[in-house]
Amino acid sequence: MSLLVVGSVAIDNVETPTERRDDLLGGSASHFSYAASFFTPVNLVGVVGEDWPQEHTDLFHSRGIDTTGLVKQEGGKTFTWTGRYLPNMNDRETLDVQLNVFGEFDPVVPDQHRESEFVFLANGVPVVQEKVLSQANSRKLVVADTMDLWINEHREDLDRLLGQIDGLLLNDSEAKLLTGEENLVAAGHAVQQLGPKFVIVKKGEHGAMYFGVDADGNPETTILPAFPTREVIDPTGAGDSFAGGLMGYLTEKKSLDSKTVKTALAYGTVVASFNVEGFGLDRMKEIDRAVIDARLDEYRAMLDF
Amino acid sequence: MSLLVVGSVAIDNVETPTERRDDLLGGSASHFSYAASFFTPVNLVGVVGEDWPQEHTDLFHSRGIDTTGLVKQEGGKTFTWTGRYLPNMNDRETLDVQLNVFGEFDPVVPDQHRESEFVFLANGVPVVQEKVLSQANSRKLVVADTMDLWINEHREDLDRLLGQIDGLLLNDSEAKLLTGEENLVAAGHAVQQLGPKFVIVKKGEHGAMYFGVDADGNPETTILPAFPTREVIDPTGAGDSFAGGLMGYLTEKKSLDSKTVKTALAYGTVVASFNVEGFGLDRMKEIDRAVIDARLDEYRAMLDF
Repeated sequence: MSLLVVGSVAIDNVETPTERRDDLLGGSASHFSYAASFFTPVNLVGVVGEDWPQEHTDLFHSRGIDTTGLVKQEGGKTFTWTGRYLPNMNDRETLDVQLNVFGEFDPVVPDQHRESEFVFLANGVPVVQEKVLSQANSRKLVVADTMDLWINEHREDLDRLLGQIDGLLLNDSEAKLLTGEENLVAAGHAVQQLGPKFVIVKKGEHGAMYFGVDADGNPETTILPAFPTREVIDPTGAGDSFAGGLMGYLTEKKSLDSKTVKTALAYGTVVASFNVEGFGLDRMKEIDRAVIDARLDEYRAMLDF
Repeated sequence: MSLLVVGSVAIDNVETPTERRDDLLGGSASHFSYAASFFTPVNLVGVVGEDWPQEHTDLFHSRGIDTTGLVKQEGGKTFTWTGRYLPNMNDRETLDVQLNVFGEFDPVVPDQHRESEFVFLANGVPVVQEKVLSQANSRKLVVADTMDLWINEHREDLDRLLGQIDGLLLNDSEAKLLTGEENLVAAGHAVQQLGPKFVIVKKGEHGAMYFGVDADGNPETTILPAFPTREVIDPTGAGDSFAGGLMGYLTEKKSLDSKTVKTALAYGTVVASFNVEGFGLDRMKEIDRAVIDARLDEYRAMLDF
């Protein structure tokens, strides 16, 4: 059983109130893949330019991430994002975006990856996300991420996509924007009405909310707090590593029962808490499954009363 | 064993995007007392004016709240607050405040209440909160609430108070203001350095954070999400009913071990979730301990994975 992810692979330059780091391995699909790799083999589909450092591909391989679908486009340059975090380390401003080869991204899922049953469509243009669906013939669970830009400017395409996926991930302000609901619980339920069987609202430092349906068809809502870490070095990719931990665990367990989904949410939360403790993937490179499991135990104990 | 609370008793006028309700029983000590009354007898110390409706006092009595210390000041008028909630139902603007008799509040703890071992100093001027301490000779646990106004304008008095209390409750923006820390986990720990053995940061719709010390002297951090309710009718008093549920349960259990504190935080969360489901105390009047316990079980199950 493997997990297919399609999305951006990028070079990030990140500025925080205390430090600036350039040429970091970034992109939604990168953070997702790395996080998921602690649970399952991952098949990555994306595009990079000629300038792509081989060491990043080597890093993917060291984690069992199959890069057959990571196209290196001759004559092109890799997607680059430069951003600055405000002192609260939650809000950020984008200083520069060079889409480069990602601007023309036309994902092709390699034949050997078309049998993937678990599929994650990382944040991207809805029509491009949709293109993946027809190439993932064995899909059993498709989860997509989205953002305000597509909600505002590609609403029709997004609505069509929402009718074809199982789960949607988005952040709190996006859930409000998509539904017009100010209460997040009401917003979560309203997103479900747009198509997805389940909805996960990411709240950054405040954790995540899950809106689904249990085995008997009853609505099921779970809210989990973030893991309390003081060491927020670089929040970039927190949402994608959350998604990676979540989808990685679901793929490992091949199940969607309530208990598994809740544990998957908890794993996502814990993996994301490591992701933010270093620039780019720095902290993630230091950990293994045992370290993740130890923090999961700590997190479980925190919520036990 | 009983619980002493000293603070404001008021008349509230509340406007939401869909409705306006006047002459509601309000005030920090009112919401606190009512919430705590599901767990323990409560001794209430406060002041009201000649205009105070007897029905509110009757309501307190029906809940086992002792109002010997609730002074009715001849010739005075009751503290009145009028506020409007924004569409997100989290932010609000104060339209009018008439401190009236509460502006001269000089709390006197009746002799028969001076043996109270558990004491809650609801939000108020720090020097007034401090006056209660010398009158609560048997105090074993004192918890205080505070607000931005005292942090900004009575800092010296507040600092002195912080050295004399066991626990401090404040909201997220106040924790940042008090410490200059932008990360809430760091802010929580920094407040502890100012004196209180434990600190609870209230995050409204995002739940609450507890920073304490366990039996072995090790730092202990617990974050709990809010109970997911769609029915936010009137958030007024949510923080005070949270505190009431928390302190009520601690008083009932006469313990401060980790498990008890965590369960107390959970009870506070659940009681607050009922408080916001109606204007003033409307929803609270409909529930009993069994209803609270049923939701606590639901909340516990939500956090179990």
